[in-house]
Amino acid sequence: MRTVEWHDNQVRMIDQRKLPWEFAQNDYDDYHDVAMAITDMVVRGAPAIGAAAAFGLALAAFQSPAADQPALLRDLESAAATLKQARPTAVNLAWAVDRLMQVAGKQKPTGVDDIRAALLSAAQSLADEDIAINKRMGAHGAALVQDGDTILHHCNTGALATVDWGTALGVIRSAHEQGKKIHVLLDETRPRLQGARLSAWELKQAGIPFDIIADNAAGHFMRTGQVNIVLVGSDRTAANGDVANKIGTYKLAVVARENGIPFYPVVPTSTIDLSLASGDEIPIEERDPAEVLAPFGKPIAPADYPARNPAFDVTPHRYVTGIVTENGIAYPPFDLSLRQAVEDTLMSK
Amino acid sequence: MRTVEWHDNQVRMIDQRKLPWEFAQNDYDDYHDVAMAITDMVVRGAPAIGAAAAFGLALAAFQSPAADQPALLRDLESAAATLKQARPTAVNLAWAVDRLMQVAGKQKPTGVDDIRAALLSAAQSLADEDIAINKRMGAHGAALVQDGDTILHHCNTGALATVDWGTALGVIRSAHEQGKKIHVLLDETRPRLQGARLSAWELKQAGIPFDIIADNAAGHFMRTGQVNIVLVGSDRTAANGDVANKIGTYKLAVVARENGIPFYPVVPTSTIDLSLASGDEIPIEERDPAEVLAPFGKPIAPADYPARNPAFDVTPHRYVTGIVTENGIAYPPFDLSLRQAVEDTLMSK
Repeated sequence: MRTVEWHDNQVRMIDQRKLPWEFAQNDYDDYHDVAMAITDMVVRGAPAIGAAAAFGLALAAFQSPAADQPALLRDLESAAATLKQARPTAVNLAWAVDRLMQVAGKQKPTGVDDIRAALLSAAQSLADEDIAINKRMGAHGAALVQDGDTILHHCNTGALATVDWGTALGVIRSAHEQGKKIHVLLDETRPRLQGARLSAWELKQAGIPFDIIADNAAGHFMRTGQVNIVLVGSDRTAANGDVANKIGTYKLAVVARENGIPFYPVVPTSTIDLSLASGDEIPIEERDPAEVLAPFGKPIAPADYPARNPAFDVTPHRYVTGIVTENGIAYPPFDLSLRQAVEDTLMSK
Repeated sequence: MRTVEWHDNQVRMIDQRKLPWEFAQNDYDDYHDVAMAITDMVVRGAPAIGAAAAFGLALAAFQSPAADQPALLRDLESAAATLKQARPTAVNLAWAVDRLMQVAGKQKPTGVDDIRAALLSAAQSLADEDIAINKRMGAHGAALVQDGDTILHHCNTGALATVDWGTALGVIRSAHEQGKKIHVLLDETRPRLQGARLSAWELKQAGIPFDIIADNAAGHFMRTGQVNIVLVGSDRTAANGDVANKIGTYKLAVVARENGIPFYPVVPTSTIDLSLASGDEIPIEERDPAEVLAPFGKPIAPADYPARNPAFDVTPHRYVTGIVTENGIAYPPFDLSLRQAVEDTLMSK
């Protein structure tokens, strides 16, 4: 079971808004609806939305009535723009779409059906690679986890945030698979509660012991010596190692450093954006205040009360112990080590 | 309208579990129910539960069938123990109960009705004093707030956390009353959402501009220069200036210091516990995991998922810029300045 997949000429996704109450999969036969599903967070998590966008672009190719290559490329350009705009912070949307557009541009003009097939194949490869990359990050990251450790984790970075296995939660899966006895403190992760809803659901299924905590409680557990390591994901990492991730990550990182607890983002190189010198350049999405005021339709304050809802924050690299990638763990100075990690990926192609 | 008051020979409290959806007052004619109301958080906030316990002890005196002073004192000792055990972290419960027990002990043995009247009078005085103290803290604290400031605030420290006016939110009221243009970022304060439910309700009524934010977002606003000062309350402050307050306060304090933002607890001297050398000695209440898993009966995760729910954390004094008391602002070294603040209160009696 994959979070995002191609099924019967449609894009199929697990509807993550309904978990853990209901397991449902949605099938999309229009790339506009795929973009909307990304915006509405049917699917979320940087690697998962990258894969969704890739399948969305393949879908656009099959939707297009174009009979020649230039017409198809024009339609694909339009679909690419729509998909890239679905959410602003994670770089994987653009990365995945650009990768497929390169494939489209490189095809010989032998016929539009060949381009369609090539795009679907490229999307499938991207999804398969995502799982392989996560397993490699899991192996590198699990070496950081000691038997008996308590791991603090934010948001959801698991199978549901990727195609399968996960990034930070993938490291936790790998450590568990190695037989290490671990315990996970799951930040519930307001406002959208990805920790309480999604990460808890995944760990329950995997048989990995955990406790859900209010985000506010993480500091208490860190200060009182009950946390050994903090593992998080990243939606976009700048060239200098500044990490944009789910809102609340920054506070965790600062408090972790204050308590001498190692803080590791687990980051496929596809989420590293070397074009940005620092995290200050990463666009931060501000979402509907209703997510704060009425999570999943359950009001916690009157609907007309004012609220602010930034969805991500930036953790400056000085709080980052190391960055786990599929090519190993990058350590400071990140300008050098992240560039090397990205080059390692390019060289392996 | 007071949060806690004596009404028609009963203890009347605003039922804070129902706000902002419903404004209801509960009347209690049995001190056991007053203790239960404190445990169940019908009333919360250190000064408010102190006043509730004082009225509860007065109620116990009227409930007692004792016909002589020794018998009444025995009943009061039993009631005092019950009331003190209602919640462990805030010191005001013990402070208020002990103050009334001293009054009871000092009465001439002229008759039990005199003791009953003296206890009620003492409880009334304690409640009246609480408001006066809050106004004085408001005046001292408002001097720290500049025109145009954005204030970050955690939990509820307003009229509802006291008898009236408030501690940290009282400072905000006082600054607003002075005509300063201020904006307040209200941490929603999971798990019990005192910020989103209670502080927002109070500020709405007072006409003070605010935004509710997820607790996770506070770091983002601090790091990006959108917060000028952090104001919080305290449930118990140790002799060295370590501050126990609502869970999440510690993370705020660390991140505030990291960003050069002043962090001030607003603390009546009744919440300063000079008998404790440091915050490590303050008992931290751990409440029902259901508060995390199903806030106000609305499930965010399956009820059988494990959760941890510490209700308070300790902020070491090195993160504290100053402590606003009714006798002025205490600055480091807090060992000296807090002792002076407490002595000032004793001298003024």
